Amino acid sequence: MDKILRIDLGAEGGPKAYETPLGDYSGLGGRALTSTIVASEVPPTCHPLGKENKLVIAPGLLSGSAAAMSGRISIGCKSPLTGGIKESNAGGQPSQVLARLGYAAIVLEGKPKGDDIYRVFINKEGVKIEVDNTLKGLGNYGVVEKMRAQFGDKIACISIGQAGEMKLSGASIACTDMELRPTRHAGRGGVGAVMGSKQVKVIVLDDTGMAMRQPKDPEKFRKANTAFVEGLRKHGVTGQALPAYGTNVLANILNEAGGYPTYNFKVGRFPGTSKISGETEAALETERGGLATHGCHRGCVIRCSGIYNDKDGHYLTKQPEYETVWAHGADCGIDDLDKIAYMDFLDDDIGLDTIEMGVTIGVAMEAGLLKFGDADGAINLLQEIKKGTPLGRIIGSGAAVTGKVFGVERVPVVKGQGIPAYDPRAVKGLGVTYATSTMGADHTAGYATASNILKVGGFVDPLKPVGQIELSRNLQIATAAIDSTGMCLFIAFALLDQPETYQSLLDMINAFHGISLTSDDVVALGKKVLKTERDFNIRAGFTKEMDRLPEFFKYEAVPPHNVVFDVPDEELDSVFNW
Amino acid sequence: MDKILRIDLGAEGGPKAYETPLGDYSGLGGRALTSTIVASEVPPTCHPLGKENKLVIAPGLLSGSAAAMSGRISIGCKSPLTGGIKESNAGGQPSQVLARLGYAAIVLEGKPKGDDIYRVFINKEGVKIEVDNTLKGLGNYGVVEKMRAQFGDKIACISIGQAGEMKLSGASIACTDMELRPTRHAGRGGVGAVMGSKQVKVIVLDDTGMAMRQPKDPEKFRKANTAFVEGLRKHGVTGQALPAYGTNVLANILNEAGGYPTYNFKVGRFPGTSKISGETEAALETERGGLATHGCHRGCVIRCSGIYNDKDGHYLTKQPEYETVWAHGADCGIDDLDKIAYMDFLDDDIGLDTIEMGVTIGVAMEAGLLKFGDADGAINLLQEIKKGTPLGRIIGSGAAVTGKVFGVERVPVVKGQGIPAYDPRAVKGLGVTYATSTMGADHTAGYATASNILKVGGFVDPLKPVGQIELSRNLQIATAAIDSTGMCLFIAFALLDQPETYQSLLDMINAFHGISLTSDDVVALGKKVLKTERDFNIRAGFTKEMDRLPEFFKYEAVPPHNVVFDVPDEELDSVFNW
Repeated sequence: MDKILRIDLGAEGGPKAYETPLGDYSGLGGRALTSTIVASEVPPTCHPLGKENKLVIAPGLLSGSAAAMSGRISIGCKSPLTGGIKESNAGGQPSQVLARLGYAAIVLEGKPKGDDIYRVFINKEGVKIEVDNTLKGLGNYGVVEKMRAQFGDKIACISIGQAGEMKLSGASIACTDMELRPTRHAGRGGVGAVMGSKQVKVIVLDDTGMAMRQPKDPEKFRKANTAFVEGLRKHGVTGQALPAYGTNVLANILNEAGGYPTYNFKVGRFPGTSKISGETEAALETERGGLATHGCHRGCVIRCSGIYNDKDGHYLTKQPEYETVWAHGADCGIDDLDKIAYMDFLDDDIGLDTIEMGVTIGVAMEAGLLKFGDADGAINLLQEIKKGTPLGRIIGSGAAVTGKVFGVERVPVVKGQGIPAYDPRAVKGLGVTYATSTMGADHTAGYATASNILKVGGFVDPLKPVGQIELSRNLQIATAAIDSTGMCLFIAFALLDQPETYQSLLDMINAFHGISLTSDDVVALGKKVLKTERDFNIRAGFTKEMDRLPEFFKYEAVPPHNVVFDVPDEELDSVFNW
Repeated sequence: MDKILRIDLGAEGGPKAYETPLGDYSGLGGRALTSTIVASEVPPTCHPLGKENKLVIAPGLLSGSAAAMSGRISIGCKSPLTGGIKESNAGGQPSQVLARLGYAAIVLEGKPKGDDIYRVFINKEGVKIEVDNTLKGLGNYGVVEKMRAQFGDKIACISIGQAGEMKLSGASIACTDMELRPTRHAGRGGVGAVMGSKQVKVIVLDDTGMAMRQPKDPEKFRKANTAFVEGLRKHGVTGQALPAYGTNVLANILNEAGGYPTYNFKVGRFPGTSKISGETEAALETERGGLATHGCHRGCVIRCSGIYNDKDGHYLTKQPEYETVWAHGADCGIDDLDKIAYMDFLDDDIGLDTIEMGVTIGVAMEAGLLKFGDADGAINLLQEIKKGTPLGRIIGSGAAVTGKVFGVERVPVVKGQGIPAYDPRAVKGLGVTYATSTMGADHTAGYATASNILKVGGFVDPLKPVGQIELSRNLQIATAAIDSTGMCLFIAFALLDQPETYQSLLDMINAFHGISLTSDDVVALGKKVLKTERDFNIRAGFTKEMDRLPEFFKYEAVPPHNVVFDVPDEELDSVFNW
């Protein structure tokens, strides 16, 4: 973990791999590392699909160790969707495997000549970059099957589907899960398009023969890890709600709160919620012989995922997440869980951000392209993307482009990125995060639902503008730090409510690295990451005018609470004033 | 001309017309008036297709008078294409007629409920706004024919075709010419989409019974006008080249200069130039019984337009302009003048910016959608727009969107607007204008070809960065002033070389309005207009990072001179430092 693997796709004579020491990037992992590399090495005004952009893939500070929950991977670049810096974060196996292979990051640089497609294979022997045009046009499932046939099943894959190959701004990067299925995605910001522009279809990781990363102080580490796991198990969200019902436990909660955006953000409650809620989903999964409680990577103790089988009991997809079910469901007026699950499968296979796709189809429905509730029409739109038709390319380019092409005014995006599953008028803390995040509209960047709705880490009334700035600011700082550890963000629920669990995380990091991080240091790290990202965006030409929600949220009141977004612009501009 | 006609499309009970005095806008015309109204009344961050945007249509300071060349009309709004302020400028009859009807401007405000289409009729009796859904889906030629049948042929029309109705960002607004054909377009910036968002299909102007506007000092005015016309007639460009061959006289000149962008800006010379040059075009027009020398509005003495007949001698379109022939021709590798002329007709009928469409089709060719040189394929793309297919909507949304949807890196746009017919690497003064204009890439905003290539107003070597900033700055200031007079910009050739012609223009304005404008006042006006526009853009969130050419112009040398765009960024930032 003290070196960076760089692959120069544009090298004379063809793509070449080389290593550089971590150097100035020492001590950084995950988002801190991807954002710092992007900010240092990528010209902010470059074309996101050009040779100057870089795709940085980094495990976290604790990835590859025995630390629970440390399986997140950060993927960073200049985003083709937002035009700003991007860190998109996924679960699955690659983070652990890459860390055990000893790499703090993989950096894809330059741009190949010609239109060959490359496959990268990394194991303890080194790195092989080979042309493999048989992968052209395959979905992620097909790619992974080919890799399994070729390299066995002890691998982890990072790949793109057709959307990434087409360089669509809605394209994701898939990471394989414990079953070697491409179900965990760095979804947001079009990172898959950047991988596509580098013409790398798949990175295959095999850590056979590599040991688990060892802590500096094994005893202290073991103890801290145990306390950390205990803390997660005893908290209501991480110990009960998420394992039992998955992230989609939120459907009923947000619907009840009137913050469940429905029919392209026209109302805050969806009549079909009970048909697509987490409770319904979990029961159906169990009934069909799937799994309602399952981890997305080894070492996960929350296990908020699952296996979703079809009517005949055959695997269809992993348990669709809350945001996916919302995006393809309520936002489009669709209440058929099987069809939503099928869209989840299609998104994973084609390599698409489920949130962006649902929001985009909602905009297409607003444009009159199909009716709200038309599940088969929505499925057809995803198939159009797979086929690469003009219509498919529009949808695959995301909500902002789709709105522009179809002349729609009500387009729920910030910095070009679709707004996710929490109405910013009825969950105003998230509205602040959407508006001001360096990432564009992103619920994970400062998950104010915690205090606005779940009353975790205190309570801030979601319907009033008061206190939302501070809430969002603090959460954005904490998140930037957590995203740098390689830890799953869901640990934050326990951390916010249980100081001793927070301390056990610090103890674990300190024991592992032989350092003495304090909670002040964590805050300082979070601030530094955000500042680095903001600075990149400013150099890319971003201004405060982009830290705004679409204007319709200001004058269109959302039922049932009939509230508008009324956090003043000047207050939004104070989020990063520290 | 001391009042503004406002039409509130969103008024309770349906669209309503009302008048306001010019008030603070007194003394302003054309671009000065549209930009000042937009900057004062439109929230810079509003959605361009929303109720807060306004469409401002203004004749110039001398329009409707006996002044030669005073038939230009300015159409302003927040642009759906660039996201910034827009003044798009057209010839034809409406400017004169609107001025004689006594209106300094028409302002379309608000947004209708429902999806009815409106027709506005204005004559000496007043204003009638009526629903006319029979106009839905018609092209501009069809709309004008219906208006002629209904209101006779003493009218002038301002209308949109299918593209404007669809609110596509490449949509233009058509103005009828002397033959009552919709051939003169406010092409750039998607102004037609804004008219479409107001659901106004056509504004019919009838000045029957209204007198020509009279000067305060008729004798002085008459003398100045005579001197002015003499000046235009004796200058080589306005007296000979433009009348004889039209604007397309430039094709051979720019090709010779190596600045004629070919194959989506890959090279600077087109092998097929002689087949599509102005000389060829004029000869063909004459041979087929069309016209090679013809004005676009009454009172024009340059007469750079013409009538282009088909092989059978039937009217096909007005004489396609240099930029149109280039855009649909060289930029797409097409050398068939009849097919280019047919595309000109289609653009006029569907209501599309010919420059944006040619640049966009060039990008589509770069994407591999069709081959360079495929004229029938290009025609088919325009037909797709007319039909409103997804592919048509992509193309109709312009080059930036098309590049994004098809994952193309080499997209020649600035601020989202397609770069016109002069390669910025080989005509560097225009490169500065493209980069820094408030309008996005716009050759008319500061036409450095004059001194770079035509040696009008001095000579600045087009291939070297030296002197381009000052050249572009001075031209941008002068243009902003001329665009405010309602004068055709082509008068500038004579003005730049002949101080006495410049003086005669000042004399004419002063005699007409009873004022005493000096040339310093003209410069001050130009600066003020630019400052107003820049200020709007800054409030809309624009930064210096947007005052840049696409990066490929910096590292891709263009043959035959093998030059890159090398005016330093810091110098670009000094264009507006006065």
